[in-house]
Amino acid sequence: MAKIKVGVAGYGTIGQRLADGVAQQGDMELVGIADLAPTLSLRALHEKDMIGANGVKYNLYLVDGADKAAFDAAGIPVAGSFEELCKEVDVMLDSSPAGVGGKNKEKYYTKYGVKAIFQGGEKNDVADVFFHGYANYEKGLGVDYLKLTSCNTTGLIRTVDCLDRAYGIEKVAITIIRRVADPGDYHRGLTNALQLEHAPTHQAVDLMTIMPHVNATGILVHTPVTHGHIITVLATAKDGKKITKEMALEAFQKHPRIRVVTIDEGFKGNASFFKYARDLGNRRGDMYEIGLWEDSIVESGNDIMYAINIPQESVTIPETMDAIRASMKMQMTREEGTAKTNEYLGIGKFKNLK
Amino acid sequence: MAKIKVGVAGYGTIGQRLADGVAQQGDMELVGIADLAPTLSLRALHEKDMIGANGVKYNLYLVDGADKAAFDAAGIPVAGSFEELCKEVDVMLDSSPAGVGGKNKEKYYTKYGVKAIFQGGEKNDVADVFFHGYANYEKGLGVDYLKLTSCNTTGLIRTVDCLDRAYGIEKVAITIIRRVADPGDYHRGLTNALQLEHAPTHQAVDLMTIMPHVNATGILVHTPVTHGHIITVLATAKDGKKITKEMALEAFQKHPRIRVVTIDEGFKGNASFFKYARDLGNRRGDMYEIGLWEDSIVESGNDIMYAINIPQESVTIPETMDAIRASMKMQMTREEGTAKTNEYLGIGKFKNLK
Amino acid sequence: MAKIKVGVAGYGTIGQRLADGVAQQGDMELVGIADLAPTLSLRALHEKDMIGANGVKYNLYLVDGADKAAFDAAGIPVAGSFEELCKEVDVMLDSSPAGVGGKNKEKYYTKYGVKAIFQGGEKNDVADVFFHGYANYEKGLGVDYLKLTSCNTTGLIRTVDCLDRAYGIEKVAITIIRRVADPGDYHRGLTNALQLEHAPTHQAVDLMTIMPHVNATGILVHTPVTHGHIITVLATAKDGKKITKEMALEAFQKHPRIRVVTIDEGFKGNASFFKYARDLGNRRGDMYEIGLWEDSIVESGNDIMYAINIPQESVTIPETMDAIRASMKMQMTREEGTAKTNEYLGIGKFKNLK
Amino acid sequence: MAKIKVGVAGYGTIGQRLADGVAQQGDMELVGIADLAPTLSLRALHEKDMIGANGVKYNLYLVDGADKAAFDAAGIPVAGSFEELCKEVDVMLDSSPAGVGGKNKEKYYTKYGVKAIFQGGEKNDVADVFFHGYANYEKGLGVDYLKLTSCNTTGLIRTVDCLDRAYGIEKVAITIIRRVADPGDYHRGLTNALQLEHAPTHQAVDLMTIMPHVNATGILVHTPVTHGHIITVLATAKDGKKITKEMALEAFQKHPRIRVVTIDEGFKGNASFFKYARDLGNRRGDMYEIGLWEDSIVESGNDIMYAINIPQESVTIPETMDAIRASMKMQMTREEGTAKTNEYLGIGKFKNLK
Repeated sequence: MAKIKVGVAGYGTIGQRLADGVAQQGDMELVGIADLAPTLSLRALHEKDMIGANGVKYNLYLVDGADKAAFDAAGIPVAGSFEELCKEVDVMLDSSPAGVGGKNKEKYYTKYGVKAIFQGGEKNDVADVFFHGYANYEKGLGVDYLKLTSCNTTGLIRTVDCLDRAYGIEKVAITIIRRVADPGDYHRGLTNALQLEHAPTHQAVDLMTIMPHVNATGILVHTPVTHGHIITVLATAKDGKKITKEMALEAFQKHPRIRVVTIDEGFKGNASFFKYARDLGNRRGDMYEIGLWEDSIVESGNDIMYAINIPQESVTIPETMDAIRASMKMQMTREEGTAKTNEYLGIGKFKNLK
Repeated sequence: MAKIKVGVAGYGTIGQRLADGVAQQGDMELVGIADLAPTLSLRALHEKDMIGANGVKYNLYLVDGADKAAFDAAGIPVAGSFEELCKEVDVMLDSSPAGVGGKNKEKYYTKYGVKAIFQGGEKNDVADVFFHGYANYEKGLGVDYLKLTSCNTTGLIRTVDCLDRAYGIEKVAITIIRRVADPGDYHRGLTNALQLEHAPTHQAVDLMTIMPHVNATGILVHTPVTHGHIITVLATAKDGKKITKEMALEAFQKHPRIRVVTIDEGFKGNASFFKYARDLGNRRGDMYEIGLWEDSIVESGNDIMYAINIPQESVTIPETMDAIRASMKMQMTREEGTAKTNEYLGIGKFKNLK
Repeated sequence: MAKIKVGVAGYGTIGQRLADGVAQQGDMELVGIADLAPTLSLRALHEKDMIGANGVKYNLYLVDGADKAAFDAAGIPVAGSFEELCKEVDVMLDSSPAGVGGKNKEKYYTKYGVKAIFQGGEKNDVADVFFHGYANYEKGLGVDYLKLTSCNTTGLIRTVDCLDRAYGIEKVAITIIRRVADPGDYHRGLTNALQLEHAPTHQAVDLMTIMPHVNATGILVHTPVTHGHIITVLATAKDGKKITKEMALEAFQKHPRIRVVTIDEGFKGNASFFKYARDLGNRRGDMYEIGLWEDSIVESGNDIMYAINIPQESVTIPETMDAIRASMKMQMTREEGTAKTNEYLGIGKFKNLK
Repeated sequence: MAKIKVGVAGYGTIGQRLADGVAQQGDMELVGIADLAPTLSLRALHEKDMIGANGVKYNLYLVDGADKAAFDAAGIPVAGSFEELCKEVDVMLDSSPAGVGGKNKEKYYTKYGVKAIFQGGEKNDVADVFFHGYANYEKGLGVDYLKLTSCNTTGLIRTVDCLDRAYGIEKVAITIIRRVADPGDYHRGLTNALQLEHAPTHQAVDLMTIMPHVNATGILVHTPVTHGHIITVLATAKDGKKITKEMALEAFQKHPRIRVVTIDEGFKGNASFFKYARDLGNRRGDMYEIGLWEDSIVESGNDIMYAINIPQESVTIPETMDAIRASMKMQMTREEGTAKTNEYLGIGKFKNLK
């Protein structure tokens, strides 16, 4: 079977990692990446002679409005235009700035019959299906335009779907303690302040779109850190059923994309996951799994409460690979699709606590 | 009736504010404060000729082990020893470092028949009653040794007790987003990290001590900020009863120590309360009320969820004044005791939202 | 002599403090303040029945484009329009957002013959003289339009002018370690990053405008904190003369607007000054003096190096009061003008180290 | 020629990177690493089956006092005791906690004739020579005990030595804007505060030990960030000679361990270097070169001022490799020794600005 040809539009925080993700899939080919300006990330790629993850060459295409002269000045080689890239690919991973994805679809994707998978920043109506690899893989089968859940929602749903399949969940209430910027961000930030958003937070609303049988609400607070969001989740089982700590733990430990950890091992907070991923030698210090603290799991009457860590830069990469698989009908079931992604990304090889 | 004679042991973050609180009570006299070393706070007091809040002179007594020569070098006048202060007062507000309060009790308070009110850092068994002005005032009546709830617990209980008296509460699950240091702290801190504590957090456990009919649990995460904790609370009413947003709001708005605010007014987060208190011209930029965001209140099935802001430096001051009133039997009911404190501290004069 | 009538345009971080400053000047009358929207600061003023510093009532006027209905909704009383305020005052302290001051001048100040003093954000050509109370008071005498130096430049010049008058300075090289936001700011911030600006920094350039006989340059780095800038200064005396640590210290200790402190007293960094000001009971926790660490003063060959702390919210207030005095010819010399300001603001009453 | 056998004592922030550094040297063999407890870093190594940089296996030895049972519980394989490791190596890179290195020397290194290279935390008298690869390589030739300069001093000396060899330097005055913790640190931190240290800072004093013909002084301020220190340097040439911006730039651009960058390329501050290293795909997101901003270079009379960025976790690794080379007489000159290190670490392949 020929490899699926994939492009990546927008080589920012997410786009770089999408390209790295595709480069690691044995059944996909990264045709190229597209961007607007010679950013630091592209300069770094150039310093490596355009060789990215897994020894793959990342060919660079320029989107409309790009200043070719700026790339020339930086010595960064250009392979062609975004339109040319569109002609070459089966599916485009669109991680352009919010709103641009919709325009790309209108101008190029429909014209050239390119499927597209949009990231969380794009409006919902750009896509036919709002997608999560574990929660609704089958809904994405053969669909042309998918939209991924955002980073917090992606990680959150991993755990709620996990409990739901094991025990049946009818309600969740979440508190998102959100990192306000990524490492290296200067264009946004917060200094010595916690900032509240109007409730309910959109992640709870989005969860209900993916899992319509669950009632979800929650509150989000921005915090001045860069290494991962922390979410506390209070989950209520259906029909007044009790979920014990042991039951929750048992379900979580079986999930390949959830790392169950403890404070006593050294996972003291969000920065510990980042440190751990760096020490693993992971590219960019990234981690595809979310963390879940065993020491955080507590029972509240019949309900179960726990805290998770979301590595915001990389958490959506596996589910995006799943989306390619669903959209291209590479695997026809949730189990097969996610397993293939996990295999290529090396997910699930860690040893969870016994 | 003669004024109640009060001393303050430990002129740190809390001790200074306790002294200020006593200085504003028309029916109390601040006999003196006690400390160990010529801290920045004592140097500031000295620069003001030892005149504190409300034009009251703060006489300084030295605790055991203090280096008198260091005070002399700084030019700070000393009125006597801690033992001498003990002889002069009816009640001591003990905000010494954790553990010292217990020793003070053993060595001086029992000896001189001084009542004492300990802050949250001291162990529970130092006191006869674990006290909260609104939740269990009557339990403190005439009791010699009371211990106040900590800052987070004090603010949290204001809201849970408020809902409980209005509608009956049987369960709460909380997420504490904790500021890790006070402004001006250098001896502790956190940099670009969120830090998790083993769950359940002690504030939930403490709440159950004060309100034994409520089941409480929760998770605490430290964040690198200084201006106030934020807590999200999910409260469940007794007997499956529903609490609507309107019901919750109505109860909160009547509470003198809860400020109901909105993001749109400008209360964007914890730092907004600090800014507001500074702009009010409040001494030290302090606020006695907790904040509660109307925009945060959401319904989760029959449960109600909301977010509050805890001004950690000053929130326990009113309840400590209440404790003096209970312990000294100055007022015999919760309503009278808290009303007197509020009157002297100027609490409840703000205009909550309609 | 009739009191000088003063208005304040823009009741933001600086404007509030300018109003407070004027309210404390025995020979000035605060006619009113002007702003655009019912900010948190105005809501706080309203909660205090529009009574500001020193028991003075702050009458509120609305600038062009203000939404009166929003003020009515918040219950904040309005005294009239900005144009009406202009008609009533001798001098306007303009702390409007950058650029607005120039328009105000064009539209109102020239029309009604109102003198104006602009803050550092406005362009230099809006004013006839770039002003600093200690460095060039006499240049401002009788001048209609003055512009104040920015907060860093104001504090920096206090020390360079101080050394220059004592020993003669020909060159300075500075490093500004800049706080990136004020307490309560949410619209700008920086998270876990130090940010460099193109050198030379404008504060060095501005210093040369005020002190043209000094060669100045420097580098500025933004840091994610809110309580005060720290500047290191390397100053070179004229003609190869050596300035010893003792000589520098002697000069600094005589300056009323420089507090000489030590780390060992407890002034560990920028947040210590803020804490100290709060503990002094200063309104808003403000301080008018800059801090200068005795422990930071080191000799570099013949040059002298030292570190200062700039309380960015309040440091320009005294020099702005000086500017009113110069512009209105209230005092004809630097010594008399600054002394009067200091007297009314209570500056110079602290005890510097011996 | 047989490979030099190297051990690493202490697998913390520096130790891990020393091991990685040795693993990349074609003429060295990493015999093993030693540590006390199953830290997060060792757990990560274990997850990778003890395979570190360059595909090299890192054998783990336990130092005195280590709890073997804790390693067994974590499943981490142990190769032997620290004493056994000492018997196997020619040279030990000692990055133990401060003070432990001295004890190791006394107890093991002298006993087994092992050379040792200590990191900056150890006291100077533990070593025979205080070492810097570029500044005094030849002093380390054949010496048994060397001590490396600390991270700030190492990077600083690269630039001062570079200017000194080109133009002759007699004086430097520095301001260190220091990151207070490493990513993932929870045991130290600073929140919303800049903290000053007593001047002169030790880095200036240390520079004079390595470069005794230079007069150095300076001030250090801690800042609440994790990704790299920034130092501003004011350098004065000998004999009143002027160093222009062009002269400085020319010298810096030739240095393999100095990356000359610009703000406009995207190097906005310390976090940009970290981001760039991550994007390069560097292990742990590390960088061996310091950054030097072309946009920061300014002339101050005859003096030259500039700002550099120090990647604190990894900057001392190359100079430590140099130290092995000098101590073991692998290369007899500074040029050859540093060139070999650079070759194996891939240093100097970047393209500096023209």
